[in-house]
Amino acid sequence: MKRVKVSLLGCGTVGQGFVTLLGQERSRIANRLGLLIDIDRILVRVPTRIRPGVDRSLITTSAIDVLDSDADIVVELIGGVHSAGAFVRRAIDRGRHVVTANKALLAASGGDLFQAAATAGVSIGFEASVCGGIPVITTLQRGLAGDSVESIRGIVNGTCNFILCRMEDGLSFDEALALAQERGFAEAEPSLDVDGDDAAQKLRILAAIAFDAPVIDETVIGLRDVTREDVERARLGGNVIRLVASAAETPLGVVLRVEPREIDANDPLANVRDENNAVVIRGKATGELTLTGKGAGALPTAAAVLSDVIEIARRVPAAAWASPRVPVRNADYIIAVNRR
Amino acid sequence: MKRVKVSLLGCGTVGQGFVTLLGQERSRIANRLGLLIDIDRILVRVPTRIRPGVDRSLITTSAIDVLDSDADIVVELIGGVHSAGAFVRRAIDRGRHVVTANKALLAASGGDLFQAAATAGVSIGFEASVCGGIPVITTLQRGLAGDSVESIRGIVNGTCNFILCRMEDGLSFDEALALAQERGFAEAEPSLDVDGDDAAQKLRILAAIAFDAPVIDETVIGLRDVTREDVERARLGGNVIRLVASAAETPLGVVLRVEPREIDANDPLANVRDENNAVVIRGKATGELTLTGKGAGALPTAAAVLSDVIEIARRVPAAAWASPRVPVRNADYIIAVNRR
Repeated sequence: MKRVKVSLLGCGTVGQGFVTLLGQERSRIANRLGLLIDIDRILVRVPTRIRPGVDRSLITTSAIDVLDSDADIVVELIGGVHSAGAFVRRAIDRGRHVVTANKALLAASGGDLFQAAATAGVSIGFEASVCGGIPVITTLQRGLAGDSVESIRGIVNGTCNFILCRMEDGLSFDEALALAQERGFAEAEPSLDVDGDDAAQKLRILAAIAFDAPVIDETVIGLRDVTREDVERARLGGNVIRLVASAAETPLGVVLRVEPREIDANDPLANVRDENNAVVIRGKATGELTLTGKGAGALPTAAAVLSDVIEIARRVPAAAWASPRVPVRNADYIIAVNRR
Repeated sequence: MKRVKVSLLGCGTVGQGFVTLLGQERSRIANRLGLLIDIDRILVRVPTRIRPGVDRSLITTSAIDVLDSDADIVVELIGGVHSAGAFVRRAIDRGRHVVTANKALLAASGGDLFQAAATAGVSIGFEASVCGGIPVITTLQRGLAGDSVESIRGIVNGTCNFILCRMEDGLSFDEALALAQERGFAEAEPSLDVDGDDAAQKLRILAAIAFDAPVIDETVIGLRDVTREDVERARLGGNVIRLVASAAETPLGVVLRVEPREIDANDPLANVRDENNAVVIRGKATGELTLTGKGAGALPTAAAVLSDVIEIARRVPAAAWASPRVPVRNADYIIAVNRR
C-alpha cells in the first residue's frame, strides 16, 4: 500500500467537495489501486467558518505550515492568480507535485509553472481547470496522444449556455441572467462568464495542450449583444445560438475564437442543454470525438481533482516518492504570504 | 530521447493503419514527448501480400523471430483468441508490454492475462479493443479514477446502429444489412454484430474496469427480431430504437444487458447516427458523461493503439526499460505456433 499525503490550499465549494468525495472513495481507492490517500493540512483564510465534514484539526491559516510540510501532493483550490500562483510556485520549488483547478492561473502563467515543474521534476495535474467533470485534458494528453489534433470546438461556459437555453424558452438576456444568478450558476458580477473571458481562459489551456504552434490571433465576443429576437430567428431557421469556443491550427499558427454562433440543430453542440458543457475534438486519424457532461459543480470538479491526485500517485515510482525534496528558493512566495 | 521498439503481430486493416499513422506522427511524438518509436518486426501470415507503405524488410512469418526479439512493446493486431492469446501470453512471460485491439481475447481470458502481466510487471494497453477511436478505457481508468461508476450505457456496435438508422429511412432489416455489408460496415457472416455478441464482449470489458463486483447476470438480444414496423412505431411516438449495451452495479453484483431498446429522442444515445458509437458513463460525483465518436475503422483504431504505445513508453522509467527480460516459459505458445 502506497501512502499519499495531500495538502489542501483552500476549502471553499470545491475544497469541501474534495474532502467529502475523498471520504467516500478512500477505501475503494485503497482496495483497488493500493493508494491510501490522506489530507495532512488544509489552508484557509477564515478558520472559524463552518465546513461540514471537514476535520477541524487539519485546518490552519499558516501558508508556511502547509507548504513546508512533507506532503507528496499540494492541491490548490484557492483560485485567483496572485497568492495561488506564489503558493503553487513554492510547492513546485519544494519538489511537491501540484494539482490545481485554477484556470485563471494556468491561462496567465501556465508556461512558467510547467517550466518550473519540469526543472523540479514534478507534475502539475490540471484536469479540473477546464470543464469540471469532463476529462478533456486526459483525453487530449493521453487518449489522443497518438493523433494530431486539427481543431477543437466547445461549449465550455455553463452559465452562458444556461442563459441561451432560457432565452430559447422566451426570456430576455437580463431575465435569463437573473435566473442563472438565482440558481447559483452565475456570479453577482457576471462579466467573466457573459463577456466570454472564462471561456477564453479554458480555450487557451486546451489549445496549449492540443497544438504545438503559437497562438497568432484571439477573438473574444461575449453574450451581451445576443437578443431574444436573434434566438427566435435562429429557431425559425431550425438552428440554435451557442457561445462557441474554437481553436484551429492554421499554417501560420493557432487561431482562437469565442463568440455566439448560430449552429445547425444537428450539430453535436446544439444538443447541449442548460449548464452542461461539451467539447468536440477533431483528430486527423480519430475523426470527430465529442465529450459532453457537467462542466462545473463541487463534486464533478472534485472528482477531476481526485483523479489527478490518483494519477500522479500511481505514476510516481515509490523510490522518487520518498526522495529528498528540492531545496527552497523563490522570493515572491514571501510577498504573497504577506499580501494575504 | 527515449527509443521505443515495437513488434507488430498482424498487418491487416488496423495493422496497416498503425504503420501509416506512425509514419505520419513519429516526428511529432519525438519532438513533443521525447519518444522515438520504431517498428522492428511485423509478423504476417502471407508475406507476399501487397501492403502499401509497409517496409518489406520488417515482414516475417516467424512468430519466434518476433516474440523473442528485444522489442519493448508487442502490438497484437491478429484478432481471434487462439494464436493471439498464446502470442500475448508469450510476450508477457518474456517481460514485454503488450498493446492489443483484441476484444474477443480480453473478453475470453482478460482476467488471466492481466494476472500474468501483473506477475511479470508489465502493462497491457487495450484502449483499441472497445469503441475504436473513443478513449473510453482511458476515461474509466484515469479520467474517472476518483469517482465510483454507477452505470454505463452505450451504443458500442456501429454495424447495428447503421442498420437501425437505415431502417429509420424505410429499409427492411435485410435491406439495411445488405447495405451495411456493401459499405464494409458488416461482415459477410454478420452474426457477431447483429446477434449482439460483439457488443456483449465490449460491455464485459467496460464492466470489468468500471466495477469491482462480479457479473451476476448477462442478457444478450440482437437485432434480428426488430422490424421496420417497430422502428416506424417508435418514430411516431417521438422515439428511436437503438441496440443499447448497459451495465449497472446492483447490491448483488453487476448486471449486463445488450438489447434493442426504444429510447426518447432527447436521450444522448438517440442522436448517435450511422456507424458512430457513444458511451454514457454515470459517475456518483461526476454525473452523466457522454463520449461520442468513431467506434471502428483502421485509422481511429490505430490512433488508440498508438496512444497506448505512447502511454506505456512514457510511464515505464528508463531504467526498467533497459532491464533484462523475464525468462521464457509457457508451453501453449509452441502449440499455437504449430497451429498457424
